[in-house]
Amino acid sequence: MKNYTVAVVGATGVVGKEMISMLESRKFPVGKLIPLASERSIGASITFKRQDIDVEVLTPESFIGVDFALFSAGGSVSAEYAPIAAAAGAVVIDNTSHFRMQPDVPLVVPEVNSHALAGHKGIIANPNCSTAQMVLILKPIHDAVGIERVIVSTYQSVSGAGKDAIHELESQSRANLSGQNYDGKVFKSPIAFNVIPQIDVFLKNGYTKEEMKLIEETRKILEDPSIRISATAVRVPVFVGHSESINIQTRKPITPDQVRSLLRTAPGVTVMDNPTKGQYPTPRDLAGEDNVGVGRIRKDLSIENGIELWCVGDNLRKGAALNAVQIAEVLIGNMVPA
Amino acid sequence: MKNYTVAVVGATGVVGKEMISMLESRKFPVGKLIPLASERSIGASITFKRQDIDVEVLTPESFIGVDFALFSAGGSVSAEYAPIAAAAGAVVIDNTSHFRMQPDVPLVVPEVNSHALAGHKGIIANPNCSTAQMVLILKPIHDAVGIERVIVSTYQSVSGAGKDAIHELESQSRANLSGQNYDGKVFKSPIAFNVIPQIDVFLKNGYTKEEMKLIEETRKILEDPSIRISATAVRVPVFVGHSESINIQTRKPITPDQVRSLLRTAPGVTVMDNPTKGQYPTPRDLAGEDNVGVGRIRKDLSIENGIELWCVGDNLRKGAALNAVQIAEVLIGNMVPA
Repeated sequence: MKNYTVAVVGATGVVGKEMISMLESRKFPVGKLIPLASERSIGASITFKRQDIDVEVLTPESFIGVDFALFSAGGSVSAEYAPIAAAAGAVVIDNTSHFRMQPDVPLVVPEVNSHALAGHKGIIANPNCSTAQMVLILKPIHDAVGIERVIVSTYQSVSGAGKDAIHELESQSRANLSGQNYDGKVFKSPIAFNVIPQIDVFLKNGYTKEEMKLIEETRKILEDPSIRISATAVRVPVFVGHSESINIQTRKPITPDQVRSLLRTAPGVTVMDNPTKGQYPTPRDLAGEDNVGVGRIRKDLSIENGIELWCVGDNLRKGAALNAVQIAEVLIGNMVPA
Repeated sequence: MKNYTVAVVGATGVVGKEMISMLESRKFPVGKLIPLASERSIGASITFKRQDIDVEVLTPESFIGVDFALFSAGGSVSAEYAPIAAAAGAVVIDNTSHFRMQPDVPLVVPEVNSHALAGHKGIIANPNCSTAQMVLILKPIHDAVGIERVIVSTYQSVSGAGKDAIHELESQSRANLSGQNYDGKVFKSPIAFNVIPQIDVFLKNGYTKEEMKLIEETRKILEDPSIRISATAVRVPVFVGHSESINIQTRKPITPDQVRSLLRTAPGVTVMDNPTKGQYPTPRDLAGEDNVGVGRIRKDLSIENGIELWCVGDNLRKGAALNAVQIAEVLIGNMVPA
C-alpha cells in the first residue's frame, strides 16, 4: 500500500488540528506529515500518531515532494500558496473560499458529487461548513423529486471563526456570569448569551458573504443553477456544531415519511427524528461526530410541496476537516465514503 | 383621574414581576395593587412604588373590587380563575395561551388591532411572545402590499420558560465552563452552549405547540386567515430577547427601502439596519427595551416578491408584560400606544 506525504497548511488552527486528527483516526496512509504555519507558530509542535512533529514555517519550497496539501490558513494564504503547491505536483484540497466558485476548480462533498473530481487541475475546493452539511440532506431529495426553492436560517457555532472566537465565547461567558463586562475582539457584538445575525462581511445586496457562499456553493455542488435559495446566517453561543432550519419547496410532492426513508439510506446522514420521544439533533449531540443529524422533518403547512427540517453537523468535521480528508480518500482509492 | 385596583396573578414569576415593574414605570394609575400567587409563595412580597406588598394566595374571592386582573401563572390557572375574575367584574388580560384562539376572546397587540378590544366579554388575551414582536413588523407590510406567505425561524431566550429556566442556563453554563456536568430539569437537552429545536410540546402534525401558536395567532391578529405561515421555534442560550429570521412573500412588489420607510413610522418598532456600520439588532441590544428592533432588511434573492428580515424583541416586555399593560392603557384611555 502506497504511503503519501501530506502537508497541512494552518496546522495550529482549529481546522488544521482537526485535519491532522482525522488523518490519524481514519488511518489515511500518511508516510510523512508536514505541519505548516506562519512564523507566529515557530516553536510549536503537533502530535501525530503519538509523535511530536515540529511545525515548519510555510515557504514556497514547502511543497517539494508533497502528495496532498490540505489548506486551512485563510483565503489570502491559499491564493498565494495553493498554485505553488499545485505547480510542485501536490494535490491541493483547500478549505478556504478563495477558489470555490472558479469554474475549473471542483467543489466537492464526496457523498454528493465525487465525480466532479475527475480531471481536476491540482486544486480542489472544500465547501463552506454550512454548505457541506446542507447538501448532504438536499441531494437525495433533489434526486427524488427536484428542489425548487430553499430558505435556510443557520445557527452557527463560534469554532467556525477559529480559536480566538472559541476563547472569546469562553472568557466572555465566564466574565458575564460573574457580573463582569468583557469586550470581545473577534465578534462585533457580545457573543456570550447573545445571537449575532452577521457572519463574514456584508455585500452590496444586503446579504453577508457567508450567506452568498451557502447559496452559490449549494447550486454548484448540486449542479443545478435553477435551484432558488435564500439564506440568513447567524452566530450563536455554541462551541462546536452548526444547526440549520431548512424550508424546502420541491418540484414534485413528497411526504415527510418519504423524506425520512430517503435520508435513512443517505451516506453521511443520521436521521434523529422521533418527536414523541423528544429526539432531534442538537449541536452538543453532534459535536465530535462524522455524520450530519437530521430531524424535525414535517410537512410545511404553508405550501403544497413543502418540507421543513432541522439539520446539525460538526462544522470542524463534515464542515471542514473530515470532508477534506474524505476528498483525499476518494482520490487515492476511487472510493466514495458511505 | 380615576385610579384602578389591579391584581397580578403569578406575581412572583418572571413575567408577573415585569408586569408590576411596567405598571410602575409607565405610571399606570394604580390605586391598589394586589399581587397574587399560589401557596408556594406564602411569605413573599413584591416592591411597588418603593412599598413592600405581601403576596396573597390566589382564591376565588381574590377579585372582588378588582378592575384589571393580569394573569401570567400558567394556562390551567387562567382556565380556572379568569372566568371567576371576569364574573366578579374585573377585566382579565391573560398572558397564557388558554383563551387566545377562542373566537369571542380578543387577541390584541394594541399597535396592530386595538379595535378588536371593542365589545370584549371580560377576558382579553395577550399573544405569545414570538407572535407579538412579529406582527408589529408584518402589519405595516401587510397593509401596504399584502402578505402571501411567511417562513419564520426563531431564536428564543430562556426567560420565556420562566425563572427555573434562567437559573438552569446560568448554573449549567457556569458548571460547563469549569468542566463539570450539570443535568438540567427544565430543558430536555443541555441549553448551555447548545440550541434546542423544541419549545412546548409536539403536536401530531410534527410542529410544536409554540410553532402553531405563532402561525395561528398571527393570522388572528392580522385578521387574515389566508396568510400562509410556517414556523420553526428554537431555544437558544440567551437570557432575555427573542430573535426571528423572517422570510416574507408579498402579494405586490415592495423594495427593501420601502419596507424600511414603512417600519420607520411603525409604532413600537425601531429600524436598526445599517450593515456597512455593522448595525442590526441583537438580543443584548433589545433586552430592557420596549420597542422591537428590525434589521437585515433585504430582497429575497429566491423569489420575485420576497423580503428577508431579522427582528428582535424583549420577550418579557413587548412579548408579555408591556403588551398586557398597554392593553389596559388602551381600555382606560382609548389611546393606542405609539
